[in-house]
Amino acid sequence: MIRFNCDYSEGAHEKVLEKLIATNREQTQGYGVDPYSMEAKKLIKRLCGREDADVHFLVGGTQANLTVISAGLRPHQGVVAADTGHIHVHETGAVEACGHKILALPSKDGKITAGQIEDCCRAHREDVDREHTVQPKMVYISQSTELGTIYSKEELAEISSVCRENDLLLFMDGARLGYALAAPDNTLTFQDLACFCDVFYIGGTKVGALFGEAVVISHPLLKEDFRYLIKQKGGMLAKGRLLGLQFLALFEDGLYMEISRYADRLAGQLREAFREAGIPFLVENTTNQLFPVLPDKVLEEWKGRYSFAYQQRVDEEHSAVRFCTSWATRQEDVDVLIEDIRKIWEELEKEEM
Amino acid sequence: MIRFNCDYSEGAHEKVLEKLIATNREQTQGYGVDPYSMEAKKLIKRLCGREDADVHFLVGGTQANLTVISAGLRPHQGVVAADTGHIHVHETGAVEACGHKILALPSKDGKITAGQIEDCCRAHREDVDREHTVQPKMVYISQSTELGTIYSKEELAEISSVCRENDLLLFMDGARLGYALAAPDNTLTFQDLACFCDVFYIGGTKVGALFGEAVVISHPLLKEDFRYLIKQKGGMLAKGRLLGLQFLALFEDGLYMEISRYADRLAGQLREAFREAGIPFLVENTTNQLFPVLPDKVLEEWKGRYSFAYQQRVDEEHSAVRFCTSWATRQEDVDVLIEDIRKIWEELEKEEM
Amino acid sequence: MIRFNCDYSEGAHEKVLEKLIATNREQTQGYGVDPYSMEAKKLIKRLCGREDADVHFLVGGTQANLTVISAGLRPHQGVVAADTGHIHVHETGAVEACGHKILALPSKDGKITAGQIEDCCRAHREDVDREHTVQPKMVYISQSTELGTIYSKEELAEISSVCRENDLLLFMDGARLGYALAAPDNTLTFQDLACFCDVFYIGGTKVGALFGEAVVISHPLLKEDFRYLIKQKGGMLAKGRLLGLQFLALFEDGLYMEISRYADRLAGQLREAFREAGIPFLVENTTNQLFPVLPDKVLEEWKGRYSFAYQQRVDEEHSAVRFCTSWATRQEDVDVLIEDIRKIWEELEKEEM
Amino acid sequence: MIRFNCDYSEGAHEKVLEKLIATNREQTQGYGVDPYSMEAKKLIKRLCGREDADVHFLVGGTQANLTVISAGLRPHQGVVAADTGHIHVHETGAVEACGHKILALPSKDGKITAGQIEDCCRAHREDVDREHTVQPKMVYISQSTELGTIYSKEELAEISSVCRENDLLLFMDGARLGYALAAPDNTLTFQDLACFCDVFYIGGTKVGALFGEAVVISHPLLKEDFRYLIKQKGGMLAKGRLLGLQFLALFEDGLYMEISRYADRLAGQLREAFREAGIPFLVENTTNQLFPVLPDKVLEEWKGRYSFAYQQRVDEEHSAVRFCTSWATRQEDVDVLIEDIRKIWEELEKEEM
Repeated sequence: MIRFNCDYSEGAHEKVLEKLIATNREQTQGYGVDPYSMEAKKLIKRLCGREDADVHFLVGGTQANLTVISAGLRPHQGVVAADTGHIHVHETGAVEACGHKILALPSKDGKITAGQIEDCCRAHREDVDREHTVQPKMVYISQSTELGTIYSKEELAEISSVCRENDLLLFMDGARLGYALAAPDNTLTFQDLACFCDVFYIGGTKVGALFGEAVVISHPLLKEDFRYLIKQKGGMLAKGRLLGLQFLALFEDGLYMEISRYADRLAGQLREAFREAGIPFLVENTTNQLFPVLPDKVLEEWKGRYSFAYQQRVDEEHSAVRFCTSWATRQEDVDVLIEDIRKIWEELEKEEM
Repeated sequence: MIRFNCDYSEGAHEKVLEKLIATNREQTQGYGVDPYSMEAKKLIKRLCGREDADVHFLVGGTQANLTVISAGLRPHQGVVAADTGHIHVHETGAVEACGHKILALPSKDGKITAGQIEDCCRAHREDVDREHTVQPKMVYISQSTELGTIYSKEELAEISSVCRENDLLLFMDGARLGYALAAPDNTLTFQDLACFCDVFYIGGTKVGALFGEAVVISHPLLKEDFRYLIKQKGGMLAKGRLLGLQFLALFEDGLYMEISRYADRLAGQLREAFREAGIPFLVENTTNQLFPVLPDKVLEEWKGRYSFAYQQRVDEEHSAVRFCTSWATRQEDVDVLIEDIRKIWEELEKEEM
Repeated sequence: MIRFNCDYSEGAHEKVLEKLIATNREQTQGYGVDPYSMEAKKLIKRLCGREDADVHFLVGGTQANLTVISAGLRPHQGVVAADTGHIHVHETGAVEACGHKILALPSKDGKITAGQIEDCCRAHREDVDREHTVQPKMVYISQSTELGTIYSKEELAEISSVCRENDLLLFMDGARLGYALAAPDNTLTFQDLACFCDVFYIGGTKVGALFGEAVVISHPLLKEDFRYLIKQKGGMLAKGRLLGLQFLALFEDGLYMEISRYADRLAGQLREAFREAGIPFLVENTTNQLFPVLPDKVLEEWKGRYSFAYQQRVDEEHSAVRFCTSWATRQEDVDVLIEDIRKIWEELEKEEM
Repeated sequence: MIRFNCDYSEGAHEKVLEKLIATNREQTQGYGVDPYSMEAKKLIKRLCGREDADVHFLVGGTQANLTVISAGLRPHQGVVAADTGHIHVHETGAVEACGHKILALPSKDGKITAGQIEDCCRAHREDVDREHTVQPKMVYISQSTELGTIYSKEELAEISSVCRENDLLLFMDGARLGYALAAPDNTLTFQDLACFCDVFYIGGTKVGALFGEAVVISHPLLKEDFRYLIKQKGGMLAKGRLLGLQFLALFEDGLYMEISRYADRLAGQLREAFREAGIPFLVENTTNQLFPVLPDKVLEEWKGRYSFAYQQRVDEEHSAVRFCTSWATRQEDVDVLIEDIRKIWEELEKEEM
C-alpha cells in the first residue's frame, strides 16, 4: 500500500530529526524561551523582513487556528471564511467552542475574494439590526487552500486592503504554506505575507517537521499577551525547544522551500499523467494536492494498492478523490502510480472503441 | 405613524396587566417557585396533556434558545437549523457563544424537511473523518417560522420521527406559536407539540404578555438540572411570579388562542388586500407576518405613515418587506392600511394604461 | 407569614406600575431605543454628572454581571472579587460559563481593600510564570455588599486609584445600590460612582422596579459594541421601553432614593431592637440587610411566622440568619417582629436568672 | 549551570528516540489509529488490567486536563480540586475557558481528603439555593501532587468511594505518575488507579517522552465521543503515531517504572543531604520534587550554579524552593549539589558557634 491520502504519513525530514538527536540530552529552559527557539524565531523574522513581528511555535493547526482567533476577537465578533475552510468543516467546531461564529462565504475553489469580504462588511454595516447579528472582525484564508489552490499577490493585496478599510484582522492558515510558495505560479514571498496579513502561520507538520506551526504576528492587538492564550488553550509545549529546533532545521539553510518544491514537482508529474489520461480535476491547482475525478471502478481497483482521500461524488459513476504528495513522497512511488494512471487511459480508450 | 414592523410594539393585554396589578403587593417566594407560577405550569401541562413535562418560564426568546441548547448538547455537538433560523441570523451568535456550532440547512420558506435532516445525519455517520466535524445532536425549528410559514402535523411527525431514529433532540422555538396554532390551515395542537418535540416553548412576548416564554420539556435529559442552567445564563427572574402570573392570564380562560386568532384574522385582511392589488409575496403563509414584494416608490411613500421591516431586495425596483399584526393591532389601523393598498392598485393600474 | 427573607418578594412601587399602565397601548420601537428609555438614560446621565456615559437597561443582576464582564475581558483575563461576591457564590458559575476565572480574595465583611487588589496585581506581575496564570484585569465589588456593608468614599477612591495604576477595570454591582446610598453613614454620590468606577449599575429589581438594572458605563473599551453583547447574552428585552419606563418612574422625581431611605429606616428599627435584646450580628452594617446571630430554638419558633434566609451556623446553638427590609416592607410588619425580638430578650433574661 | 528547576529540561530517553528514528520514513495512517498507537494502547490496557478501558494519547497536560473536564461536565457543573491544583493555579484558566468553575478546597500538602469532598457535596445538596451555585460533578487530584506528595491506596479508595456515592467522576492528573508509583512508600498499582479512578493519565512529558500523556478512561460517559473532543480542543496530533511510539518504548519492557525509580532514588539522595544539613522542608514527600526551606543568602549564592524554582517566602530570611530530579538527571550533577548542601551545613554550624 502506497499512501497518497495526505501529507502527514511519515515522520520528519532527516535534518529535522538529526537536530533533535544532537541536542537531546542538553538542558534548556522550558516553554519556548530556550536559545534554539529564540534562534529559530530570529531566522523567521528575518525571512519575513519584520524584526518587529512576534513568532510563536504551536503544536498543530487546529490549536493555532483557535488560539489566534480567540486572541483577536471579542465575544460578539466572528471570523469570515470560505465555506470550504478548515475551521468551518474539519475542526469539530473548535472556533465555536471558543465562542465565535464562522461567517461562511460560498466558495467553489477554496478561495474567497476581496469583493465577497467587502459585501459581507457592507451588509453588516447597513443592517439596521446589525446588533442582532455577529460582527465580522477577522478574515481567515488558507494558503494553499483546502482545495490546493493559491492566492496570487494581487488577490492577497486586495483582500488585505479590504480588511484594513473595514477594520478586519487578516489571518492566513499556512498549514501547507510551503507547497503554496513553491508552486510554479506562485507570486508571493514570506515578506509579502508578513506585510499583507496581520497574522499567518508557517506549517511544519505537513512540510518536514514531526509537528509544529510557526505563528507570525504583526498586528499589535494580537501580539499582546499571546503566550497567555497559548498556555490557556493547551498549546504551550513544556519542552518548547522541540519546536524551535525543528524550525531551525527547516529554515537555517533553505530546507523548507527545497522540500516544498520537491513535493510540488512530484505532484506536477501526477497532474500531467492524469491529464494525459484524460482525467478531469474537480478543481485546477498547482500545489501538492490533486483532486482527479475518477471512475468508481478504478477507485475500487486501486483501493488495495493506494490510500487516497475520498472527496465527493461527482456523478453516478465518478467520484473526486484527493492524492497528495509531500516532502517525503518517493519518486518511485509516484512512478508506480503514473504507470497505473496510464493503464486507466488505455482501458478507457478500449471501452470507447 | 402606525407600527406594523413587528409584534412587540405595545405593552401587554389588559388581562395580563390586571393580574400584575391585582397581586402587586402580595409577598411570594422568588425565582419561580411561587403559587402563581405553579398554577400556570399546571395549566400548561394539562393543555399539553403531559403531566410529566417540566415547564419553566424564561424572560425572552434568545435566552430560551441558548439555555435549551446549552442544556442539551455536549461540547462537540451542534444544532441543525434552517439558514433562516433566528438562532443562525438574529441572535448575535448566542449559540456559538455557548460553544456550539449551528449546522445550517438551506431553506427558501423558513422550514426544513425531515429529508434534509436525515441527509445531514447520514452524511455525518458515513464520513470517515466525522470526528473532525461537529456532531448533529439537536434540531431547531420555529413555529411559525421567521417567514411566517408553519409546519403541518404530517411534516412535524416526520421530522420528529427522523430525530428519534437518529438520536437527535427536537426543539421548537415558539416565539410566535400562538399565531401558528391560530392559522386557518393549522393542523397541530399543544398536545401534538408536546408529543413530537423534546422541548418547545410558548411565546408570550409576542402574544399578549409584557415578556416571557414558557419552555415545555418532555425529554428527561433536558429536564435534569434545567433550573441551574436558567440561573447560569441569567434568565432566572428574581420576581419569578411576574412570569407565572402572565401565563396564568393567558391560559386560564383561553386568552392566548383568542388573541392569536384575532391577529391572524387581521393579517388575513391585509393579505387579501395585497392580493387583490396584485402584489405578490416573497413567501406564502397564513400567520401574522406578511412579506409583500412592493415597488420601492410605494415603500418610499409609505415610510412616514407606517413602520414596516425591510426584508430583502427583490429586483431593481422592488423590495420585500415585512408587515406584522399582533394581539394589539387595531382594526382601524388595518383599515387605513387596506385603503392605501387599494390606492397602489389603482395607481399601478393607471400606469399600465 | 411575613417575608423578611429578601428584598424581592413584592411587585413594583405603585408609581412604577402606573407608568406601565399609562403607556400600555402605545406603540414604540423595540429593543430599548424608544423615547422613554432615551429619557430615562438622559436622567441617569445627568444624575451621574456624566453626559458622556452610556446607560443600558438589562433585565437582571446575573445578566448584567456576565454581560459587563464578558465585554471587558480577553480570554486569559480574570475578575478579582471578594470570596463572598455574588458572582463567585450565587450565580451558578455564570462568569466561568463566559470563560473567565474569578480571582477570589478573602473577605470577612463582604468588602475587599485596595491593598488586597494591589497585592494581587503585584504577585501576578512578579511571578515569572505569570503567563501560566490568569491575568487580573477587572475588579468586581458590590455596593452594598452581600453582607450589607458599604464602601466609603475614601475606600472607593483608593480602590479606583489602585485599579487605574494597574490597568484594571473597576466594576460595581449595584443590585442594592439604593440601600447603600441611603445608609446613614453613606459618603458617596452617584457622581462619585460614575467617577470612580469604569462601570456600575443601579439596581431596580430590589429597589422599586418589577425588574431591571441600569448599567452606567464610563470606560470607552466597555462602551464599544455593548449592545451586541446584551443581545448575545439574552438580555435585550424586545419591549425595551418596559425598562426605560420603570427607571423613569424611579428617577424623575427622586423616588429611588426616597424608598431606599424608607427601607433603611425600617432596617434601623430592627437593628436597634436586636441590639437592645442583646443579639449580636455576624457583621455590622447600616443598610437593609441584617445578619443577627440567633439561638436555634428562636429560629425554630419563628419559622412559621417569618421567612428569613439562613446564612451560616455560628456555634452549636446559634445560627446567623438574614432579615431584609425593602421599599415594600410595611411598618406594621416591622412592629410585629420588633415585639417578637423583645420577647426573646425577656426569655433570655429569665433563663439567665 | 545545572538544571534542577523542573523535570522537562531534556529531550527524551534514548529508547524513545530510537523508536522514532527507526520508524521515521514508514507510512502510517494519521490521528492516532496507526498500528503503533494501537499496540501501545493494548499494552497500557493490559497493565491496567482493564481491556474495557479506552486509551488516548494527548500532546500535553493542560490539553489533557481541559479535554477530560470538558468531556465530563454539563455547563452548570464544576470540578472539585485542591487550591494548589495545577488546573487552579497554573493553566491560565484553561478549565474556566471551557466554561467550568473549579471548586477549590484548601490544602496544605497538595492533597484533598475524602472528608473534604463529602462535606462539599453535602453542603451543595443541603443548600436550598443550590441551583444558584455550581454543582460539584468531578474531582480532580494529582498523583504525585504539585507538592510531590502522594495518595496512599487507602486514601484513594476512600476518595473513590465518596465520589461514587455522590455521583462524582474521579479524575487523576498523572503528569508525574511514574515518580509517584516509584516512590518508596507507594502502595498503588496501575490496576488500582484504573479501578479507583474514572479517568486518569500516565504522564510521558516528564517521564522519558519528548511529550505526550496517555489518558486511560474507564467510565462510559467519558468514553463516548472522546475523540471528537480531542480534535475540538486542538489535541489530536496529525502524526499520532509519534505518541504511540513513545508510549510503546516506555511500556514494552518496563522502561517507565525503571526511569521513575531512578529519578526518585536521586531525589532521595538529595533529600537525605538536606536533612543531614539540618534543612527543613516546606512539605515532606518521597517523590522527585523537593521543597527545602533555605536561607536567602544560600539561594543567592547558588543562583549562578543551579537553576531551581522559587516556591514561596517562608520568613524574612528563608524561602522555599523546588529542586526536581528526573529520568534524565545525572548522578554526577546530584553529587555536585550534595557537596554544596554539605557546605551550607558547615557554614551554618560555624555561624551558630
